[in-house]
Amino acid sequence: MTQASSAHTENREHVFYSWAAQETSHPLVVAGAEGSWFWDEGGKRYLDFSSQLVNANIGHQHPAVVEAVVAQARELTTVGPQHAHAVRSEAARLIAERAPGDLDQVFFTTGGAEATENAVRLARLATGRNKILAAYRSYHGSTGGSITLTGEPRRWASEPGIPGVVHFFGPYPYRSSFHAADAAQEGERALAHLAEVIELEGPSSIAAVILEPVVGTNGILVPPDGYLAGVRELCDAHGILLIADEVMSGFGRCGEWFAIDHWNVVPDLICFAKGVNSGYVPLGGVIISQRIADLFARRPYPGGLTYSGHLLACAAAVASVRAFEAEDVLGRARALGSEVIGPQLEKLAERHPSVGEVRGLGVFWAVELVRDRVTREPLVPFNAAGAEAAPMTAVTAACRERGLWPFTHFNRVHVVPPCTTSPEDVSLGLSILDEALAVADGYYTG
Amino acid sequence: MTQASSAHTENREHVFYSWAAQETSHPLVVAGAEGSWFWDEGGKRYLDFSSQLVNANIGHQHPAVVEAVVAQARELTTVGPQHAHAVRSEAARLIAERAPGDLDQVFFTTGGAEATENAVRLARLATGRNKILAAYRSYHGSTGGSITLTGEPRRWASEPGIPGVVHFFGPYPYRSSFHAADAAQEGERALAHLAEVIELEGPSSIAAVILEPVVGTNGILVPPDGYLAGVRELCDAHGILLIADEVMSGFGRCGEWFAIDHWNVVPDLICFAKGVNSGYVPLGGVIISQRIADLFARRPYPGGLTYSGHLLACAAAVASVRAFEAEDVLGRARALGSEVIGPQLEKLAERHPSVGEVRGLGVFWAVELVRDRVTREPLVPFNAAGAEAAPMTAVTAACRERGLWPFTHFNRVHVVPPCTTSPEDVSLGLSILDEALAVADGYYTG
Repeated sequence: MTQASSAHTENREHVFYSWAAQETSHPLVVAGAEGSWFWDEGGKRYLDFSSQLVNANIGHQHPAVVEAVVAQARELTTVGPQHAHAVRSEAARLIAERAPGDLDQVFFTTGGAEATENAVRLARLATGRNKILAAYRSYHGSTGGSITLTGEPRRWASEPGIPGVVHFFGPYPYRSSFHAADAAQEGERALAHLAEVIELEGPSSIAAVILEPVVGTNGILVPPDGYLAGVRELCDAHGILLIADEVMSGFGRCGEWFAIDHWNVVPDLICFAKGVNSGYVPLGGVIISQRIADLFARRPYPGGLTYSGHLLACAAAVASVRAFEAEDVLGRARALGSEVIGPQLEKLAERHPSVGEVRGLGVFWAVELVRDRVTREPLVPFNAAGAEAAPMTAVTAACRERGLWPFTHFNRVHVVPPCTTSPEDVSLGLSILDEALAVADGYYTG
Repeated sequence: MTQASSAHTENREHVFYSWAAQETSHPLVVAGAEGSWFWDEGGKRYLDFSSQLVNANIGHQHPAVVEAVVAQARELTTVGPQHAHAVRSEAARLIAERAPGDLDQVFFTTGGAEATENAVRLARLATGRNKILAAYRSYHGSTGGSITLTGEPRRWASEPGIPGVVHFFGPYPYRSSFHAADAAQEGERALAHLAEVIELEGPSSIAAVILEPVVGTNGILVPPDGYLAGVRELCDAHGILLIADEVMSGFGRCGEWFAIDHWNVVPDLICFAKGVNSGYVPLGGVIISQRIADLFARRPYPGGLTYSGHLLACAAAVASVRAFEAEDVLGRARALGSEVIGPQLEKLAERHPSVGEVRGLGVFWAVELVRDRVTREPLVPFNAAGAEAAPMTAVTAACRERGLWPFTHFNRVHVVPPCTTSPEDVSLGLSILDEALAVADGYYTG
């Protein structure tokens, strides 16, 4: 056997894969990565339009972040969360200083799921209330609490989950749940819906509303202007806390430190992970309003984990935040969105009948594929698998054949390369996507 | 301000600590660590009898593990969990080969909580049943599901948790829930109790029993011989799966790869973390029986996480397993227990009236402190805090003053140094503990 097939077989022998049927999934054996590219053991190179799982915001193997990990590893890999350490302190300071309002305290976790778990715990203890309102078409993690918050099919197999979680509908102008005529009306009606859910669930029983300020995997749903401010007002009117899950949308993905900054809304708690250090070392956390943190000044906070504030992870975060600023990664992400991805996707939409809508900001975009632009019938059914999903599988294969690794979900292709991708590489990837969309057009029936 | 107090202040400004009242906890500012020692910014050195949170099994900054992390960081920090990579494959193979029976598949997580979460999900889906039996006096993590499994006070603030979890009593000869006269009778009666719980809860409704083969934080409770085999028999009789939570007890802590190996019992699922790579990079996982894994051959497993099989973490695990074998860490851990810690703790028990019992194996020992050997009244009440806990706080302070960093819980001092600690250092630490126990004797009223 070649080395490639040997490694592949060995992986299939002992690694149990996330979200996968073990025999029918065929993982690519990755050999290396740099910047916006990765390659397999045969040397085939792929332009990474997925950022892996939308985490490699700074690109692969950024030298300054790698060397920060190396230096910290040689100095001290980690200490227990009960102790203090300068690099943990520095990471917390840099993150808190970039968070809006009085969000000045950082509780570190190893990823996004434990971030949303602890945000919910904090909200419940801070308010003395139990219910959490979470959106349909959301993903918040796969642990007992976070999977219950999740508003999509990945939740179904893990029910019943924790008690007290109620799902509401967020704005989705292209497929309005509220029969809205345009985005502005969608935003207004989505707020009226949330107000009605709050009224009927009992405002005094609701600890928090949790939402992705820009919904990620479930569609890159950019909220209409005014929506997030309206949610903030509803929360304030009823003493409800607002939790922004910025695990996917934060740290440059939307061209800001946090997506919610785009609308100048200040939540009470922000969940982060992924882009904070691009996943070079597992890290996540909750940024906590000082008012909430103060409730635990003399009363122990009842949560924790062995690797809270892991030093290697914090060192990577410190280096990444500094590199973001030295290299203007936020500005580059904004420009990629407004000058490259947005305009070029609009052109793809003109050329390809199968493109129902393109939407996004920064380096966080979706191409929603349909069989009919009038009925907006999706290219594949909701939650399609196997043969039903064949049209999307074919689009994906067409991209991969041409050296582009896309991120797909349901009937959508997401354009989510690293924030540091050059405009030339983004254009190259979009030209490959242009060719691959001919496959989608072949299923068009409108 | 000195550098030390500056770093301390900065930590208090932005880091929100696990399981702590933020103002009244005073974290030590750690500057470095090597082997079984760490030191603060003032240069004061501590012998680490805690292994931080019982995770640094191989000791601090083991050169081979550090250099494996460095080399992997420079090659490729990570790839998404949907892809395959040689180092992920190698880590899974090494772990699976050391697991008992047909436990041949590894689902990687970033720590212990997500391991128990996924073990429960696997057990429920594999059996089609919902209930999980978990032990009182256990800790399984602090996420929505894992905190519900937890059988001690850290669960209380997070209730109600996931439905379907029922707690039973495990064996604890020194404080028998079953009025047993000795360890053998305790084991028999604990089995009878579990059988009764299974009968009354409905065997056909129970997916799994989860337990720590040797209970960790809640007392280093070593099961009487025959107990774990008896649990296995009960499970087999009713089609119930057995989940061994080896997060703390595995990878050398008990002188074996897994504590349960000590009794030659084969569970269906093993949860691991901590000692797998000593926490140099966050890593945990579930080792899955091939029979269970096969159920997901063509049906997607509905769980996952961005950092599943993180390459830096896997590289650290590979290097650590190899170093364990090259340096006979398991044999050294066994010898430390049988030749050094056990005999010396027995002598402490003879000298100090406040020592009610010493127990353990490998480098996993508890010294249970009492006010009266006859009534066995604990030195501090169950779940004591503040002034009530003062006697234990004083014992801890006496150790720290003398350069020993102990692990304490309730009325116990645990002796849990790295498995690689030299017999001389272990003896040094025990001699400091000897002095500190005079403080506990001062509270003796028996």
